[in-house]
Amino acid sequence: MCSSELEEPLTYFLQSDLAAKGIEVRRRSDFDDVLTANILAQDANEIPDDMELTAYFAIGIEISDIISQIKAKLLELKNYGFKTDNVEFKVIQVCDKMWQNQWEKFYHRVDFSRSLAIVPEWECPKPLNPHQIVIKMNPKQAFGTGTHITTQLMLMVMERVLLSEMSVLDVGTGSGILSIVASKFGASNVCATDISDDAIASAKKNLALNDIDNVELKQANLLTGVKGKYDLILANMLAEILYQLIPHLSDHLARNGSVIMSGIDCEQLSRIEKLLSENGFTVNLKIQEKRWFCILVSQKSN
Amino acid sequence: MCSSELEEPLTYFLQSDLAAKGIEVRRRSDFDDVLTANILAQDANEIPDDMELTAYFAIGIEISDIISQIKAKLLELKNYGFKTDNVEFKVIQVCDKMWQNQWEKFYHRVDFSRSLAIVPEWECPKPLNPHQIVIKMNPKQAFGTGTHITTQLMLMVMERVLLSEMSVLDVGTGSGILSIVASKFGASNVCATDISDDAIASAKKNLALNDIDNVELKQANLLTGVKGKYDLILANMLAEILYQLIPHLSDHLARNGSVIMSGIDCEQLSRIEKLLSENGFTVNLKIQEKRWFCILVSQKSN
Repeated sequence: MCSSELEEPLTYFLQSDLAAKGIEVRRRSDFDDVLTANILAQDANEIPDDMELTAYFAIGIEISDIISQIKAKLLELKNYGFKTDNVEFKVIQVCDKMWQNQWEKFYHRVDFSRSLAIVPEWECPKPLNPHQIVIKMNPKQAFGTGTHITTQLMLMVMERVLLSEMSVLDVGTGSGILSIVASKFGASNVCATDISDDAIASAKKNLALNDIDNVELKQANLLTGVKGKYDLILANMLAEILYQLIPHLSDHLARNGSVIMSGIDCEQLSRIEKLLSENGFTVNLKIQEKRWFCILVSQKSN
Repeated sequence: MCSSELEEPLTYFLQSDLAAKGIEVRRRSDFDDVLTANILAQDANEIPDDMELTAYFAIGIEISDIISQIKAKLLELKNYGFKTDNVEFKVIQVCDKMWQNQWEKFYHRVDFSRSLAIVPEWECPKPLNPHQIVIKMNPKQAFGTGTHITTQLMLMVMERVLLSEMSVLDVGTGSGILSIVASKFGASNVCATDISDDAIASAKKNLALNDIDNVELKQANLLTGVKGKYDLILANMLAEILYQLIPHLSDHLARNGSVIMSGIDCEQLSRIEKLLSENGFTVNLKIQEKRWFCILVSQKSN
């Protein structure tokens, strides 16, 4: 159990640094509608006070070691201003089957907007209206399920920007969600990179699930080995990694191209803006939800 | 000729306070694409350095009086932090026919997003993709042509929020653009108010142009005389008018309803947020473009 503002940084840390095999997040607010619809009492008892974040690790891993690393990360986040006082830990050994059941019970369709829905593989992919595009996801293995704020803000800006047949570069693709949406939104071709084996495997599965054939997956650290220039670069990652990315953006951005960056904590926005300006970029649009910013960036025109 | 940040407040002032019969805005940036496409040299000479704002008044009006009122408004805006030093005035007498030609020459289609285009009545309403909804507008008579930043930010949030058959209240509808979009996005019914005769006439014309029959137009000052509660309230107007509106919102907002407010200059955001909080509201999402903020607001949950 922990405060919901910890969701993004902890999810990222658990997957990237501690190699968690899967992450499940349940927020009190996710159940508001369900609660009013008279769900079974035993399920109601399972609903968290604020947020419950479950990370799944392989059998045989040293769990006390994992917990002490999480505690050190929480201390670091506390210094950034996050509320970390009310975090409780619980360790349970589960079989594969139980994990799958838990997952399917609490991960549901996100009707992200009139024009886009993200639906788990095991639910009905019927659109809300004739204009809605439905993306199917099996998000178990990697970051980016469409339920995270940073991903949602990214999608909002993509809906506005992806008007024509653009070439798209998706840095740190995770589950592949942004590449799949870009392709469905009419991108001519997409290059998606991720450093993690699990992400590449998961993205591959999700691309197939959506019959996408114009996304090239590349196992790489950020832009290493990426060739060519793109009309749109997507970077949904924590600010610490955006710092490393920014100096290399112009090598891969086509003339009049745009960059959408998400995953920026409010405390880090001014440093990101300064770095962007030093590298010849200007911020055209900012969206904020809770502590998180997503920005639309282009090259300065002079 | 003036600095482009003056567009919104001046447009509003010219129409509401000085009863301009029509407004035309031409920005340098609107012509970037056209310029590269080899337009005729005589048209290129007509393109403004930054922004040109043309207001049309009825024949017989005392023009020196109008100019001194504009100058007083500019002084007020200067105190808000706007750049007003490089404003130039030019007065020309035009016939009706010429006005119409000027208008049609420079007001063009706005492909606002993948899912929405705003197209002048005299242009081809073909969608960019099978999912795009096209709204036809004859925007000559009233505020809100889809080219203003504050309207565009509003539309971005509407795309995200209008998922189901909501009832919508559009306060200060101007040309009717937001009511038309709400209806096309699936609103069950819309009530649109405006104090101005010209706005009501223009909205009526634009509703007919788009075959909309579930929008009720009401000539009223803000919420005066409005009955009932709505799932979504739209308020695209200058902050000074939002101040008056906020204390009355909860009388007309359904349980779990949302309000989208646009037209907030960055200097006025904190005052708006304070007033919202005092009236039991919380801000869930903020979008900023240049000096302009649009916010998504709901009632505090306790």
